[in-house]
Amino acid sequence: MFLKMFLICLIISPIFLHIRIRCKTILHILLLSNILFMWMTRYHKRLLFIRIVQEGLTSEELDLVKRYVFIYPMYQIGIVPAYNLHILWVIDVSQVYFESDEVYACIVTCGGLCPGLNTVIREIVYSLYYMYGVKRVLGIDGGYRGFYAKNTIALTPKGVNDIHKRGGTVLGTSRGGHDTSKIVDSIQDRGINQVYIIGGDGTQKGASVIYEEVRRRGLKVVVAGIPKTIDNDIPVIDRSFGFDTAVEEAQRAINAAHVEAESSENCIGLVKLMGRYSGFIAMYATLASRDVDCCLIPESPFYLEGHGGLFEYIETRLKENGHMVIVIAEGAGQDLLAESIRSATQQDASGNKLLQDVGLWLSQKIKDHFAKEKKMPINLKYIDPTYMIRAVPSNASDNVYCTLLAQSCVHGAMAGYTGYTSGLVNGRQTYIPFYRIIEKQHHVVITDRMWARLLSSTNQPSFMNPKDVIEDKKEEELLTQIVNEDKKEEELPTKIPDISTEDNLVKKEIAA
Amino acid sequence: MFLKMFLICLIISPIFLHIRIRCKTILHILLLSNILFMWMTRYHKRLLFIRIVQEGLTSEELDLVKRYVFIYPMYQIGIVPAYNLHILWVIDVSQVYFESDEVYACIVTCGGLCPGLNTVIREIVYSLYYMYGVKRVLGIDGGYRGFYAKNTIALTPKGVNDIHKRGGTVLGTSRGGHDTSKIVDSIQDRGINQVYIIGGDGTQKGASVIYEEVRRRGLKVVVAGIPKTIDNDIPVIDRSFGFDTAVEEAQRAINAAHVEAESSENCIGLVKLMGRYSGFIAMYATLASRDVDCCLIPESPFYLEGHGGLFEYIETRLKENGHMVIVIAEGAGQDLLAESIRSATQQDASGNKLLQDVGLWLSQKIKDHFAKEKKMPINLKYIDPTYMIRAVPSNASDNVYCTLLAQSCVHGAMAGYTGYTSGLVNGRQTYIPFYRIIEKQHHVVITDRMWARLLSSTNQPSFMNPKDVIEDKKEEELLTQIVNEDKKEEELPTKIPDISTEDNLVKKEIAA
Amino acid sequence: MFLKMFLICLIISPIFLHIRIRCKTILHILLLSNILFMWMTRYHKRLLFIRIVQEGLTSEELDLVKRYVFIYPMYQIGIVPAYNLHILWVIDVSQVYFESDEVYACIVTCGGLCPGLNTVIREIVYSLYYMYGVKRVLGIDGGYRGFYAKNTIALTPKGVNDIHKRGGTVLGTSRGGHDTSKIVDSIQDRGINQVYIIGGDGTQKGASVIYEEVRRRGLKVVVAGIPKTIDNDIPVIDRSFGFDTAVEEAQRAINAAHVEAESSENCIGLVKLMGRYSGFIAMYATLASRDVDCCLIPESPFYLEGHGGLFEYIETRLKENGHMVIVIAEGAGQDLLAESIRSATQQDASGNKLLQDVGLWLSQKIKDHFAKEKKMPINLKYIDPTYMIRAVPSNASDNVYCTLLAQSCVHGAMAGYTGYTSGLVNGRQTYIPFYRIIEKQHHVVITDRMWARLLSSTNQPSFMNPKDVIEDKKEEELLTQIVNEDKKEEELPTKIPDISTEDNLVKKEIAA
Amino acid sequence: MFLKMFLICLIISPIFLHIRIRCKTILHILLLSNILFMWMTRYHKRLLFIRIVQEGLTSEELDLVKRYVFIYPMYQIGIVPAYNLHILWVIDVSQVYFESDEVYACIVTCGGLCPGLNTVIREIVYSLYYMYGVKRVLGIDGGYRGFYAKNTIALTPKGVNDIHKRGGTVLGTSRGGHDTSKIVDSIQDRGINQVYIIGGDGTQKGASVIYEEVRRRGLKVVVAGIPKTIDNDIPVIDRSFGFDTAVEEAQRAINAAHVEAESSENCIGLVKLMGRYSGFIAMYATLASRDVDCCLIPESPFYLEGHGGLFEYIETRLKENGHMVIVIAEGAGQDLLAESIRSATQQDASGNKLLQDVGLWLSQKIKDHFAKEKKMPINLKYIDPTYMIRAVPSNASDNVYCTLLAQSCVHGAMAGYTGYTSGLVNGRQTYIPFYRIIEKQHHVVITDRMWARLLSSTNQPSFMNPKDVIEDKKEEELLTQIVNEDKKEEELPTKIPDISTEDNLVKKEIAA
Repeated sequence: MFLKMFLICLIISPIFLHIRIRCKTILHILLLSNILFMWMTRYHKRLLFIRIVQEGLTSEELDLVKRYVFIYPMYQIGIVPAYNLHILWVIDVSQVYFESDEVYACIVTCGGLCPGLNTVIREIVYSLYYMYGVKRVLGIDGGYRGFYAKNTIALTPKGVNDIHKRGGTVLGTSRGGHDTSKIVDSIQDRGINQVYIIGGDGTQKGASVIYEEVRRRGLKVVVAGIPKTIDNDIPVIDRSFGFDTAVEEAQRAINAAHVEAESSENCIGLVKLMGRYSGFIAMYATLASRDVDCCLIPESPFYLEGHGGLFEYIETRLKENGHMVIVIAEGAGQDLLAESIRSATQQDASGNKLLQDVGLWLSQKIKDHFAKEKKMPINLKYIDPTYMIRAVPSNASDNVYCTLLAQSCVHGAMAGYTGYTSGLVNGRQTYIPFYRIIEKQHHVVITDRMWARLLSSTNQPSFMNPKDVIEDKKEEELLTQIVNEDKKEEELPTKIPDISTEDNLVKKEIAA
Repeated sequence: MFLKMFLICLIISPIFLHIRIRCKTILHILLLSNILFMWMTRYHKRLLFIRIVQEGLTSEELDLVKRYVFIYPMYQIGIVPAYNLHILWVIDVSQVYFESDEVYACIVTCGGLCPGLNTVIREIVYSLYYMYGVKRVLGIDGGYRGFYAKNTIALTPKGVNDIHKRGGTVLGTSRGGHDTSKIVDSIQDRGINQVYIIGGDGTQKGASVIYEEVRRRGLKVVVAGIPKTIDNDIPVIDRSFGFDTAVEEAQRAINAAHVEAESSENCIGLVKLMGRYSGFIAMYATLASRDVDCCLIPESPFYLEGHGGLFEYIETRLKENGHMVIVIAEGAGQDLLAESIRSATQQDASGNKLLQDVGLWLSQKIKDHFAKEKKMPINLKYIDPTYMIRAVPSNASDNVYCTLLAQSCVHGAMAGYTGYTSGLVNGRQTYIPFYRIIEKQHHVVITDRMWARLLSSTNQPSFMNPKDVIEDKKEEELLTQIVNEDKKEEELPTKIPDISTEDNLVKKEIAA
Repeated sequence: MFLKMFLICLIISPIFLHIRIRCKTILHILLLSNILFMWMTRYHKRLLFIRIVQEGLTSEELDLVKRYVFIYPMYQIGIVPAYNLHILWVIDVSQVYFESDEVYACIVTCGGLCPGLNTVIREIVYSLYYMYGVKRVLGIDGGYRGFYAKNTIALTPKGVNDIHKRGGTVLGTSRGGHDTSKIVDSIQDRGINQVYIIGGDGTQKGASVIYEEVRRRGLKVVVAGIPKTIDNDIPVIDRSFGFDTAVEEAQRAINAAHVEAESSENCIGLVKLMGRYSGFIAMYATLASRDVDCCLIPESPFYLEGHGGLFEYIETRLKENGHMVIVIAEGAGQDLLAESIRSATQQDASGNKLLQDVGLWLSQKIKDHFAKEKKMPINLKYIDPTYMIRAVPSNASDNVYCTLLAQSCVHGAMAGYTGYTSGLVNGRQTYIPFYRIIEKQHHVVITDRMWARLLSSTNQPSFMNPKDVIEDKKEEELLTQIVNEDKKEEELPTKIPDISTEDNLVKKEIAA
Repeated sequence: MFLKMFLICLIISPIFLHIRIRCKTILHILLLSNILFMWMTRYHKRLLFIRIVQEGLTSEELDLVKRYVFIYPMYQIGIVPAYNLHILWVIDVSQVYFESDEVYACIVTCGGLCPGLNTVIREIVYSLYYMYGVKRVLGIDGGYRGFYAKNTIALTPKGVNDIHKRGGTVLGTSRGGHDTSKIVDSIQDRGINQVYIIGGDGTQKGASVIYEEVRRRGLKVVVAGIPKTIDNDIPVIDRSFGFDTAVEEAQRAINAAHVEAESSENCIGLVKLMGRYSGFIAMYATLASRDVDCCLIPESPFYLEGHGGLFEYIETRLKENGHMVIVIAEGAGQDLLAESIRSATQQDASGNKLLQDVGLWLSQKIKDHFAKEKKMPINLKYIDPTYMIRAVPSNASDNVYCTLLAQSCVHGAMAGYTGYTSGLVNGRQTYIPFYRIIEKQHHVVITDRMWARLLSSTNQPSFMNPKDVIEDKKEEELLTQIVNEDKKEEELPTKIPDISTEDNLVKKEIAA
């Protein structure tokens, strides 16, 4: 067992090297208890201690660390998730990597709007200014393209004081425009040494490439990301900022659809919500509203015609209630859409598949079905609140979250870490290497209790052939599974990258 | 001059006959001052006095009447606008036409949703119940069709107590379904003797036909309307209920468009607002928001291409500011739309022209223009908040207004008046004969100061050839106009029907 | 009759002189019709024509003028109310009194906060900048005191672009600090020639004194006011800006009180709303909410104990319903409060009586009454939302209104008028001399229909001895009143100053 | 080690007996891995398996269970936290303890209002009706007292369909009125066999007593609680429902205070928020708003005068900024308040200390200080939004949470469990024995990172003598602490009751 742990340490340590600019430190490994490790950094000035913890710290450990940190405010803690374990570290930020005067930071926002962007910008500026005395912070105008095609904006605490009460981003944003070498040229030429990149998975991929280029050129530049996705489809982290606000704001649209539907006979209120690849907003908005009769998401395929299909359900529901509300995520039913339109799948600038508007398509399909085949006169009111949701300022809960993300990101950068994304994992601030964020997407698990709750709340059909499901799982006997260690390896949760790729990565690191 | 006034009286009196069920009363006419008349109803028990006033009452007259009414709460006053004059009457509602037990009222809502419908329903029920002791009030389910095709809903104060805090209409609504004889049959068979009809101009036309049929059959049934149009396109009255709420709610969409537009480069936020034939919502929402760069309404034709056209303006604006917000009323640019689509003009159930979605059309046009001809990459975010605006509950100001309308409507009905629509004219409660409401539509006067203010606030082009305008008006010298009495006759404001039709009507009335 | 009109003209003309800086103009008087006059300004370059109208213009006159104004955008119209008549004027703003370069404007906000202050500031800056090319606009920091005790703030369109979306005032405000000679010194020393003063009646009094001092010193300085009072207690004008927003926002507090009251047994929700001397907010908020059982305002005295008193009503209501909501204006029941506290009446800085908190006092009184005398256990939840109402941004309807006020005020100033307050009277933009605004306060007329509607909606007692009322009015027979001309003189509405003071004023003017 | 685990099992098993009505089951214990246990219930029909997990399940275990549950929807899982471990169980709800027809449920709400009460009521009714076919659900009117002093209210899905959109509780609430024997009499007489009790810690104590009495009488009655506290001061669970909404709504008040403060010179906006014994709302509202300069909570004592005191900080802040915003939790500074008022500490009906209003007290103190001692003229605007926060409907996030709580509570009751409170612990639904909920209160840990973040965001003084803190902790060397096992025992986190009391309880259980 000790051996096993030692091996894990060997595997993990390069990750640490990976996320540190300077790695002259020799880590001393100490066995603490039968389930906890600890590396002491004897020669390292800032990193006070590190240890690996399974499933987070125990409460008493955390309390202790926190108390320590509080009394000596120069300590900062963080937790890095790795291989189903977590690495706890405490750094001495009083001996930060950068001098205040030396820092020249810049912030860039990319991709679509999301509530909370301005809060994150504000808090990065405030944290740099008031916690570390950093005076020089630039805003890059209009996304990645702004690095080389536009003037920058000077950001001061006074200038960003009220921006968290506004929607959108004061810096402007764009998709694409990612000419890596021009961007790194610009960073180098301007003398920037901290780059904060706020954006979705396309953007984080870009950040990863910039980080590689920066490393290749041997620049002393921190590249740090803050994951932004209103769809909540970024893996590893608990939830993305803006998501809570989006669910809240989506209630307006669902409410309107419900009021419209209730006020006419055989009326269907159809609301399209965000969610290209994952249906979290649709699912939570449905659960929060309780007025929705059917929720369609990308993860749960559905079909229109025939027994157990959507049309049948709509008909039943209208006959029972006289009205219904359908919520559809923008990425749902793409297979059906593709079939019926057979349009060449284009790629938009950021690399997302340019999805046809599924809301308009479904509206037409439903209207046609009831007009032609059924002779049942229906009313359909289609609401697309996407831009009205994206553009609101973040609510209180997201504001707090954005604050934590931004502060944590700044602490990491000032301590000299790079190539990471700041995120909340199991309720704790962590620094996650870029590749962990971008390798997969987070999806609604339709065999999960949350989706089961939704199904029971809407009474909608599961659009699955239950026999198939059971057959797939028949041999999966409960006890055997739990005992079966081999199988467990194959069923590792989505958070964990498999050893092989990791190994490659480690080698690459070492080679580099 | 005395003669002239006497003649006016002769003309007006039939209007009164027209709006009263029983007209055995002989009106005594008294000259009060050099500009005011007064009829005293010597033999009439309820109608205390009537007089004609020019441009509303003087303040002292009104005060006096009000004080009178307050001390003896059984008096109700009303003002009827007619021929640019107003008839003030005071009725003694303590001797109401109907006994409380005798009344069997019903309420029906027709047409699209509008904030405040539920408030009006609630207040009619409350006024009938608490002011007149009327216990039997029915709700007709789902618009006119509900009279003969559905069960009715019993309305009690307890049942409607909280409905003004909800959007939509608890009664349900529909377009069309107006089988007059079946409706009047249903009224007759159920023994209903007060019919309150809440709806737009299509509905009021229907109410007018029902009223004629009721008269033809000689039924003792009050038919009273409350004008509902979120577009504010009903003439005579000051504003329609729900309009203020709609303008308020439209701010959200415009704000979202502004935030989106500001956050991307060369980004156009396009918002479609309600307004089939009149652009009031678009105009007021634009003035209230101050973030709009261009407002397009049905009353002000525009063109896309060429000098002074919309595309040119967009290009200029984007070059100056990098973003812009356009608000378009749903009925704007119908001529252009018709040209480019050349679709057979269908009629929807209520008789409104089924307008193609001008927002989607314009979005496509703008995108095409900049994509193909100009090579200027633009972003366009299209927001259609229509259903989200219609479905909200009414705001405080509309709530007060709905209360006044409903109370006033009930007073009139209980006093035995029929064939009228309740409305606020120049700040005063009035009863307006149906035909006055339905004969025209209220439009934004684009030569008015309000539109001029909008133009100066947005700096948008007027889309007019100024030469034409001036040529048209060149000979219209200011002084000659004012002195010229003949011309004045031709330039009577929209509120006033010309004598000839009125005369015909009067004769018809008398003949009937 | 012609003679009478001529006399009126003679009386009115000095008013005009009064509100004009330069008055070399000779007015030619032309009789237009049997009820309308017109002065033509032959030698006057800007003033195109003026005429006196009774109760506003007829629609056709207005249309004509507007059209004229629209075609030639250099014309501006205005209406000044005087002696129950109105003076219509059209000025040629293309020949404005001030050169753009010459203007040095300043804006000051005084007194308590009110939704819309920032909108007014923004629109003054925008109007000056974009309509007249005025580049130099100062903000005075922190009210009158800021003229001499603080630095000024430069106001640019860019700087004030978004302020209408925020509550409060960007300029800061204060009460008092009115050292007239220091203020005028500062105006003179800085070379300011347009002073825009936004404030309540205390502030307008101050503005009037500044105006007198400016005139005394013979400075070419415009002093223009925009009336600000959330209470709507300024006379002459239709309503004050911010009022609509305040009523809307007050709904939250009333709703909360209603929810609290409904959720406990024998629970009273007590809400204190603004209204030192007039109860408009309380009245309209009550009418809009429909959840209020009792509304207490300064204009309608009430008493606590005994038959027909408040305690009796509360007891009845609680027995009937189990809960109730009371709305009290902050100035209500001051006599009772004074009695029970007998505190020395202090004066706060602006000269308003420092009113004790009537809400807390009434809460205690009610609790004591039911605790000691009645043994009926009650719950009382007291809500004071004053600051939460004052501090919100203005709603759409107030935003439009603020825009009109500011634009109109700027047009007047640029045309060279001074000593006036900008206001909407009977739906039309007017310039009102200071003394007309400050001589009285606007009050809820408790013999008016609006208050009667409130009483019928809440079913609260009138707290009046009905016998007294009737006795007072017994001899006031309806017809005799109307005919009786003498009496009318005594019953002139609040808007009209009596001749004698006017005469004095005129003489003073002429003497000056 | 195996022995140790076996002992733990022995200790835990009575807890299970404790929370089960019938306990004839023999539990088979199986060792699964070196850190996991599992009991198989061979003879038990519903309980499929149980095991003890440390710090929650691993992801793969959870996935497996969930999948199992999803395929066979009759399975429900739950997790019970006990002794720093968690017990996972899977029950077969297809063989529920109660027959649908047999169930006669009642719901009661007690204590102060909290956003989400109506959502919980709605979801209990819906879950019982649609998941278990239970038709008979009663609402107890007005809290505990309603069991014996009032009529009950029949609750149907239709009746509660829309209540989650309203604030307050449709059932009414009250404090106190807890006559246990009368309540249990009423339960027995009416034949109720499921009692759902929604309330704060006073209420849960009551529920615990009712449960004991029910057990004493040997009734087959489930007593289940749902913890309600807007203050978030209930231990064990992650957060209480309504908390998120309260923080959101508190932003309005803080915003208003900020706007008021900014608009006047030397102006202090003082906001009192909820929080009798814990300052969570104040802390999160402060972090979310970013406009607050000082946040005072019960957990962090402060002092007014002298160096490092509040007055000094206020003075500094006003001199720097000209304005400041203070947020105070209602329970903060009670020691100071007690001193200065020395009022007899009364107990209100529910047993909470009747706290004097600390907001008014602090306002007066600050005013006095600056008026008398400092001669610095200040403005203070005091806002108490308590009732306006409590009375709003719950937001989307709380709505989802309330749904989970209610569903989980119903599943437990239908499976025959009793004497528990439903709650979310570390993100998982659990059933917590009453005594665990009521034994302590949840407090802000002022040595925690969240409070540290707040301090760094507001820059307020810690009001602690740093020397004392350091001295207390000086000997607490980091490593020794972590290694020191004995010490850890004493430093168990707040969630864990110490063994001795547990032992007593276990014995009591066994004796019983």
